[in-house]
Formats: sequence, structure tokens, C-alpha cells
Amino acid sequence: MSENIKRIYKPKAISGFPEWLPEERLVEQKWFDHIRRVFESYGFCSIETPSVEEIDVLLAKGEVDKEIYALERLHKDEHDKGESRLALHFDQTVPLARYVAQHFNELTFPFKRYQMQRVWRGERPQMGRMREFYQCDIDVIHVDNLPISFDAEVAAIMYEVLEGLNIGRAQLRINNRKILTGLLETMNIRDITPVTRAVDKLEKIGDFLVIAELRQAGLNEAQSQKVLNLAQQKGTAADIKRISCENATMTQGAEELVYVLDHLAHLPAHGVIADLSIVRGLDYYTGTVYETKLLDVPEFTGSVCSGGRYDDLAGSYINKHLPGVGISLGFSRLFDVIRQTRPELMGIGPKGPAEILMVIPDENKRALASETARTLRRRGFKVEMYHAAQKIKKQLEYASKKLIPFVWFPPFEDGKPHEVKNMSTGEQITSTPETWKA
Amino acid sequence: MSENIKRIYKPKAISGFPEWLPEERLVEQKWFDHIRRVFESYGFCSIETPSVEEIDVLLAKGEVDKEIYALERLHKDEHDKGESRLALHFDQTVPLARYVAQHFNELTFPFKRYQMQRVWRGERPQMGRMREFYQCDIDVIHVDNLPISFDAEVAAIMYEVLEGLNIGRAQLRINNRKILTGLLETMNIRDITPVTRAVDKLEKIGDFLVIAELRQAGLNEAQSQKVLNLAQQKGTAADIKRISCENATMTQGAEELVYVLDHLAHLPAHGVIADLSIVRGLDYYTGTVYETKLLDVPEFTGSVCSGGRYDDLAGSYINKHLPGVGISLGFSRLFDVIRQTRPELMGIGPKGPAEILMVIPDENKRALASETARTLRRRGFKVEMYHAAQKIKKQLEYASKKLIPFVWFPPFEDGKPHEVKNMSTGEQITSTPETWKA
Repeated sequence: MSENIKRIYKPKAISGFPEWLPEERLVEQKWFDHIRRVFESYGFCSIETPSVEEIDVLLAKGEVDKEIYALERLHKDEHDKGESRLALHFDQTVPLARYVAQHFNELTFPFKRYQMQRVWRGERPQMGRMREFYQCDIDVIHVDNLPISFDAEVAAIMYEVLEGLNIGRAQLRINNRKILTGLLETMNIRDITPVTRAVDKLEKIGDFLVIAELRQAGLNEAQSQKVLNLAQQKGTAADIKRISCENATMTQGAEELVYVLDHLAHLPAHGVIADLSIVRGLDYYTGTVYETKLLDVPEFTGSVCSGGRYDDLAGSYINKHLPGVGISLGFSRLFDVIRQTRPELMGIGPKGPAEILMVIPDENKRALASETARTLRRRGFKVEMYHAAQKIKKQLEYASKKLIPFVWFPPFEDGKPHEVKNMSTGEQITSTPETWKA
Repeated sequence: MSENIKRIYKPKAISGFPEWLPEERLVEQKWFDHIRRVFESYGFCSIETPSVEEIDVLLAKGEVDKEIYALERLHKDEHDKGESRLALHFDQTVPLARYVAQHFNELTFPFKRYQMQRVWRGERPQMGRMREFYQCDIDVIHVDNLPISFDAEVAAIMYEVLEGLNIGRAQLRINNRKILTGLLETMNIRDITPVTRAVDKLEKIGDFLVIAELRQAGLNEAQSQKVLNLAQQKGTAADIKRISCENATMTQGAEELVYVLDHLAHLPAHGVIADLSIVRGLDYYTGTVYETKLLDVPEFTGSVCSGGRYDDLAGSYINKHLPGVGISLGFSRLFDVIRQTRPELMGIGPKGPAEILMVIPDENKRALASETARTLRRRGFKVEMYHAAQKIKKQLEYASKKLIPFVWFPPFEDGKPHEVKNMSTGEQITSTPETWKA
């Protein structure tokens, strides 16, 4: 008896670190495969960077507002002293900048890359936020000048990604920050951050509070009203053309926005809208900015894909002028929201990838069953061997439980044919492993 | 001028955290895709676990000899106090055990899973070892009893994985630890760890030093010689059958080994060998053990895939008896060794996935070029748009540099046909985006 007394440490989920059951993971893989297929269909290459960067690299642009997880060897020794401190990356943009700077001479520009990795944020657990999650990013980086056509291309790619996930209609909401910064130039307002932060909240807090925030930021009443009026503009390229531009910056912003909208004209009408309240809080962005709304999934609040154009990707790491444009899809939160609120959109069911379960009639037929499975695999089918010559009923039950669509019966007696049962129709036919089709 | 003076933090590679150029990453993806395809062709499901576990979970079986990276929020506050401490996982076996224990009631057994994730080891940088790398693992877990047939299946799967990477011949070296532990039972030796550690080194240190270590472990000269004689046995199932077994444990071990070898008879002769010096140092393993040698890549020292059968996967986390068998492929080291020593085996070249570069004849034809690209993408082709209406020579040079195999010319004048240039043959034909074939 005493051997049975052992210390058991009962594991539990760690808040903010999601993991999925096999049937959920199958759908996650399908989503990742689709996203990768779309990215690659536009010729974007994949890169992966290490999960960690030196803390000095992460903080090269100054303190960041993301919470960072630093690494520490559990058993430190004197060898750790001279080393740079490492931390998990909190996005894929800083690693991209570091990668481009470090491998600058080995890359071909324009550098079009996608990146689908986990990122980490040291959020407090009670916030309910994910602390480890996947992001799917695309960016195009060029040296000195980056054509505006890429601003349309990355948007088209993300639209195609969302459309193919079959989670209803998506809507790209696009703006160009130069329109607002141009207007602020005419008002001689240099510190635009408080203004963009206020405008960014328009949908959330409404006109009245935005005006209040703009007044606090130092704008007078007329100026605040003018900024609000601009931020309320939305519509098509034709609507943007009607905006009266008061200086060259505004004109350039409006022209770029119209160019991008024109080059997304192949998308359905609901798929793209110009929305001048979209400014993204980050000072990082200098031109086009994107957010994306899921029109048929109100449970998903906020923007599922966001991004924009930036003037200088890697100025902290290399003395080159590298403008870029990119969009990032917050994959894991999207997956989790759909999983929890719209599981019917996901097709969760099968507990594994097998298309065929291979029955073992009796142990003497195991070699035949294995050979049959190998033949089918060579033809591209996914074939799971049942593990023992148990009662046929039990083997069929296993296929039902795992939702394996076909069950294969090798001949129970020499000279008899193979048979295949379609588990959804119940139909059972004779066939051969060399010729069978699903 | 003063604007150009900025602080630049020049990034450098972090020792032990590899990253690849786009052309190398393309090959890495091809390898991962192949491995996944093989795993799934046997019906194994994918799981991913978080990158971290609670330190208490990682250490539930006692101290581990792997170096562990603990996480620490850079900006700690009072909320961190009550929390369990987290650390990056150092393998995929502990996470698997925790996953199976935690989701026991939601899984279907036998649970056949594969897992391809990064793992972390806090190695000292000067050791030249990887501190972040991919492992590709397959395991089968069952409740109470796990059929021996899985010991053959996981070996067959890993053989197929290695064979398909086109890096020359692989050889599975298989043993069953019960043969040696049975012999030690006859000698009344209970502490088998020093013995297996000594035997494990046979290939590296030779007969003489193994005997010396066995003597140090307390075996007398006759016993040491007997253990050495056993460890020197290698060959086919017929050779194993000739071993004289002195008790039931030895007999069972030999029978299991013969069973596994018999069920790998479809592999080529060089592909499998019984080798009784393979015992794996870990006490964890209780029956079948595997190592794998690359016969044509001597630069790769040691075993590329290793594993074996264990009696009890998750005893530290759940009060169930869960035997398993599995093999692990140390992906990143293999990839890196081949990359450095045998790049010609990898087919490194193209800098992106595009099959076709779409030329932009002039800006007025951009819409036509985009539409042509979309048509080809819908047909499954990967089409990269060139970014500007530059000289044709420049556009062709870009395709050459990135090794894009075809260049597509939309008609330069209305009414003319599309043309496609094969970049390796130089041949240029007329075609249409709806009908073209590579």
C-alpha cells in the first residue's frame, strides 16, 4: 500500500496562458494554414526571430508601455554576470527592426515579410488579458522610399485573411494621419499626441468628451470643433475628395488615402471605409492607418487587425532610413472570442487529423492492416491504425468518438476483398487500397 | 545636421538563440511541413502547450538537471506576490504530462499526439549550445496498458520523417532495457543507474573504460564482463533470439525487442539495428529505447532522435497509471548542422515563396497587373507584384535576385496577349492568367 502514497501536484491552468484541446487545435492549425497561404500567395517571405531580445534592444526607443517578462537562469552563477539581460519580446515590430538592421546587407528590398509567433506581455493576471498569444504580422520595408501601393496591398492581404476565416463580414477602416496633422499645423499645434489620443476615443466616448479632451489639450473651442468635424468624416474616396484641405500636408494625406481606397476597389462595398476618427494612439505612425471591425461578431470589441505606415523602422539600430507599412492580426484573442461565442463558425469536432481508421481484424492480420495503411498513406491519405484486435464494435466506436470519417476493413479471410465504411452515411463498399477514393 | 546625431544601439546575435535568413527559413518551413505531414499521416493530433509552466510543475519530479529560465516581470508590483512563479519549459515531456493530467477527462485514449515547439535551456553561453530550439516529439499515452505495437509505430514514423528530409540514410538503433535490468536482477544489483550510465558510454569510451566504470559501480570482474558482453550484442531479430535469457525480465525484454524489430521489417536493411549498448542514461525509460544515427552525415555526432517507453507519464500530477512511448527529434541542431556542413542537401536559394513576379509595364497598367495577379492567386499560384513601373531590366533583375521562377508580362498595349518568361530556360510564351500552367 505504501507505494501508492505519492505526492501529487494537481496542475491547473495558468491565467493568461491559453491552451487548446486537440479538436480546438485542429481548427487553430486550419486558421494558421489559411493565413500563411494568403501571405505567401502575395510573395511575402516568412521569418522567425528568437523569443527573446536583449533588454537594451527592447528599450532602445525609450521606455515601452508594454509589460515585459525578463529571463533569469534559475541557478545563476558567476558566468551570468557579464551577460546582457534578456527578455521575451512583447511584439514582432521591435524584433523585425532589429532583424532588418542586423541582416541589412543580406536582405532584398523591398523586404516583404510575414511573421506568426508568440509574443508575451507581463500583464497582471487579474486583468483577464492574455500574457502569451500569437500575432500574425505582415510588413513591407524599403530603403529611403516606399511606394504608396504597398499601403493598399497589405490592407488587401489582411482583408483576404479575415474573409477566408469564415467569421462573417470584415471591414477595413482606413485613414491617413497627415490629414489631421496637416490641420494641426494650420493651428500651430506641435504636440499632437494628446490630440490623436482624444480623437482615437471618439467611437468609445462620443463627441462631447472628445471636445472636452481637446480643450484640455490646449485647443480653443473653434479648433476643437474643427478637429471633431474632421474626425467625424467617413465614407468613400469621393467623400474624402470633398474635404477642404488647408495646406500641403492635408492635401498629401487626402491624396494618399484616396489612392489606397481606389486600389482596394475590388473589395466588396462593406469591406473598406475611410474613417477619419481612426488615428491610432501611437506616434509611431506617419501616414496610412488601419483598423478592422468584424461586422457580424459584435462580441469582438475593438480592432482585430491594426497597423499603418511608419517613417523609420530601425533608426535606433542602424543609420539607414527605412520606411515601412504593416498590419498585425491579434490571432489568439480572435480565436478565443470566436471559440467562446461562435463555436458553430469553427467546425470543431474531429479529435485528430485521421481520415481513415484501419481496423485490425485479428492479430494475424496486423501485418496486412499495416501494409494497407502504408499504401493509403503513400497515396496521401491520413490513416490511423487501431491499436488492438478488439471487437469490431469497439473499433467502430473509437472512430465515432474521434469523428474519423472512414473505417477500413482489411479482408478478415484470405481471398476476400477490402471493405470501407463511410461513417456519416453508413454505406459500406468493397475497394482496394491502390484505387480507393474518399 | 544635429537631427542626424542619434543614439544607435547596434544589435548583434545572442549566443544560443539562432535565427535564419529568409532563404534558410523557407527550407526550415519545408522541413516542418514534411514532419507534420508524416505525423498526421499516422493520425497523430497536434497539441501546443504554453511556453511556461509553474516552477512547481517543472520540479514536481524533483530537481532537474536541465538549466531553467524563470520569468520575472520587469516592473514588479504587489500583485506579483501571491502568484506562482513561472518558467520556460525545457522539454515537451513535462508539459505533455501536465496537459494529460489536467485534461484527462476530455482526451481520447490511446492519446497519440505530436508537438513541435520551442524549448529553452538556460545553458551558459560559452558552451556553444542552443538555448532556444525546436523539438518535434511524438508520444502515445494510454491508461493502464499500452500495446507494444506502438513501440514499433513511433519508430517507423521517425524513420519516415528522417528519410523524407533527404539527408542520407538514417539508422534506428533499438534496445529494450529489460534485457539489461533482467541480467542485473540475476546479480542482485538494485541500483542500476550507475550501470546504465556506464553502458551508455560504450561507443564513446570503449570496452576498457566501461569495465572500469562497472567495477566502480560495485560489479565484480565476472559481472562486469557479462554486462559488457551483453552490451556488445547487436544485429537483427535473429541475433536477439540467440541471447540466453536468465530470468523472466530478460526474456520479456528480448521478446519485446524482437516484436518491435519484426514490425519494422518493411524498412530497408540499414534502417534498423538492435543495439544493446543503447540504454539511455535516464531512469525514466522502462522498456524499448531508441537512438538514431545519420549514416551519411558524420558531422552530426550523437543521436538525432531519441526516446523510449516509460511506465508512468504523469504520476506526479494525477492518480492514474499512464504508460507511454515516444521519440523526440532535436530539430534545430539537426537543421543547423546540415545548414553549416551540407548546405547542398538543403536546396537553399529562393528568398521568398513567390512562383511568379508580376511586371508593372507602366502605372496605367497597374490595375490590369493587379487583376491578373488576383486571377492567378485564385488558381493557387503565389504571385508577387513588382512595386513600381520601373525599367523591365530592373524588374527582371529583381526576379533573378530572389530566384522567382517565372515573370509575367501583362500586355503593354491593349489588345496584345499576356506573356510569361521562364527564368531558368529563358523561354517566353504568350498565355492567359485563366489557363497558364507552370
